[in-house]
Amino acid sequence: MFTGMSAFPLTPLNESKIDEHAYLKIITRLVDAKVDSICVQGSTGSYAYLTLKERAHLLRLAVEEANGIPVMTSIGALRTRDVLIAAENAQKMGASALLLAPVSYQKLTLDEVFSLYETVAGEISVPLCIYESPGTTHFDFSPSLLLNLARLPNVASIKLLGGYPESENYLNRITNLKNALPTHVSLGISGDVFAAPSLSAGCQIWYSVIGGLFPRVAMKIAHLAITGKGDEAAQQSAKLAPLWALFRQYGSLRVVASAAAMLGLAENGCLPLPLKTLHGDVCKEISDVIESVQLS
Amino acid sequence: MFTGMSAFPLTPLNESKIDEHAYLKIITRLVDAKVDSICVQGSTGSYAYLTLKERAHLLRLAVEEANGIPVMTSIGALRTRDVLIAAENAQKMGASALLLAPVSYQKLTLDEVFSLYETVAGEISVPLCIYESPGTTHFDFSPSLLLNLARLPNVASIKLLGGYPESENYLNRITNLKNALPTHVSLGISGDVFAAPSLSAGCQIWYSVIGGLFPRVAMKIAHLAITGKGDEAAQQSAKLAPLWALFRQYGSLRVVASAAAMLGLAENGCLPLPLKTLHGDVCKEISDVIESVQLS
Repeated sequence: MFTGMSAFPLTPLNESKIDEHAYLKIITRLVDAKVDSICVQGSTGSYAYLTLKERAHLLRLAVEEANGIPVMTSIGALRTRDVLIAAENAQKMGASALLLAPVSYQKLTLDEVFSLYETVAGEISVPLCIYESPGTTHFDFSPSLLLNLARLPNVASIKLLGGYPESENYLNRITNLKNALPTHVSLGISGDVFAAPSLSAGCQIWYSVIGGLFPRVAMKIAHLAITGKGDEAAQQSAKLAPLWALFRQYGSLRVVASAAAMLGLAENGCLPLPLKTLHGDVCKEISDVIESVQLS
Repeated sequence: MFTGMSAFPLTPLNESKIDEHAYLKIITRLVDAKVDSICVQGSTGSYAYLTLKERAHLLRLAVEEANGIPVMTSIGALRTRDVLIAAENAQKMGASALLLAPVSYQKLTLDEVFSLYETVAGEISVPLCIYESPGTTHFDFSPSLLLNLARLPNVASIKLLGGYPESENYLNRITNLKNALPTHVSLGISGDVFAAPSLSAGCQIWYSVIGGLFPRVAMKIAHLAITGKGDEAAQQSAKLAPLWALFRQYGSLRVVASAAAMLGLAENGCLPLPLKTLHGDVCKEISDVIESVQLS
């Protein structure tokens, strides 16, 4: 399941409840577009803001709706204890794979992160994806840590962040990792603007934010790049430059949540406070972007 | 209550339970040392790793044990909704003040952080302390945001991080803020190595990690500095240089948790996994530091 385009949908909610109707409407779009896989309650699905019980319930709804498309979910939590509970819940609810970022409040050491993954990998029976997300976890995976983690049982994919770290050429990093990783561990890319070149450079899967809202355009870019049509993939991605600029400025979550509301797929303000959807002049920009995405 | 030395004790725990016996033993030491105030379930008290229910229960125990010493607690959480619940719980359990850091998973904007504090300040009836903690929240308060927050109702103190930001002289920052803040808002310092010079530069309270374990030495340094004996305070603080070096290398939480275990005040491994206490050669260094602190 770790090839192609994995769509990361929103979990629309407000201060009093999760909007399950909107959530399922968004997942249905992904099923209709025949995405390769779905990751519910990833960062874009606000897993960190939900209780373990809410996450288990939402996963079950998604698996029922997915019509056989593999569903992954994040099991990240501040405490190892809660990660293990999330993993057990997710397996019970039918997750095909688990995604784990080293969520932190106190900055974690390399040893602590290795132990976290070692503990979890030893307890699960479905594939695990290692999630690099320095913007939310503030943890830097060293290349040697990634290689050590890749040797743990059940580890099946690494979700890298494109363009990271800024101090080196990220495409070289992808090539080097690809050459060093066991072949059964797939290399995946996140950071949508970096997807097309990263897939052309050897990544096998795009863990995609826009794929959660605009699955057809993300599927098109991913499959062009994976089948060797890197130039066409890059052209398609370049058409979305205004969207990538909005992501950079406001964060992808605020932009896709605002876009979902403008498309009638969720209510306004569908993020957990203190996070806010966007308002004012930027909405016109988002509206223009939506139009161009729908045409592409 | 926002002057002098506020002690931040540990919350010793393991994967199956909170060690309430050890927790109360540590608090009793603070009461015996007549600290100016206590902040339970601050960052050193692992608030971020505890449930709202656990936090409320632990606060009640602390207030009962405190013998009239004012007790503050952190109300931080990822969701505004949970911050409000924590605030309500804390007030019910007898908190004299509330401490709030802008906890994040998705990076927060200035506007989101202002709204968070505005919402909370409008709902509470005890003083609020604004908590700058870039190492755990990854949020940078601008000077103008701090001044705007200081004007909100119930805001009574700001807990700055000493030595931060690295790009400017932190003592100048303290002087500038002190001159600009309303006089009813006290300026406090955290980052223990920076306490003595910051108190001499005009901070009124030290929010102290070592105060949670070695209350007498922290009280001595704080009160020397506050009563104009800055040189003596600096000398006392300089004696602890090996401790400050350990804090910098391993993080203050791992060091004080390890020291508490070595002192018989908590069990080994009293932090929430994936966080680990220290082991190996560094324990000898900690043991030497403990000896020198106890002599000072």
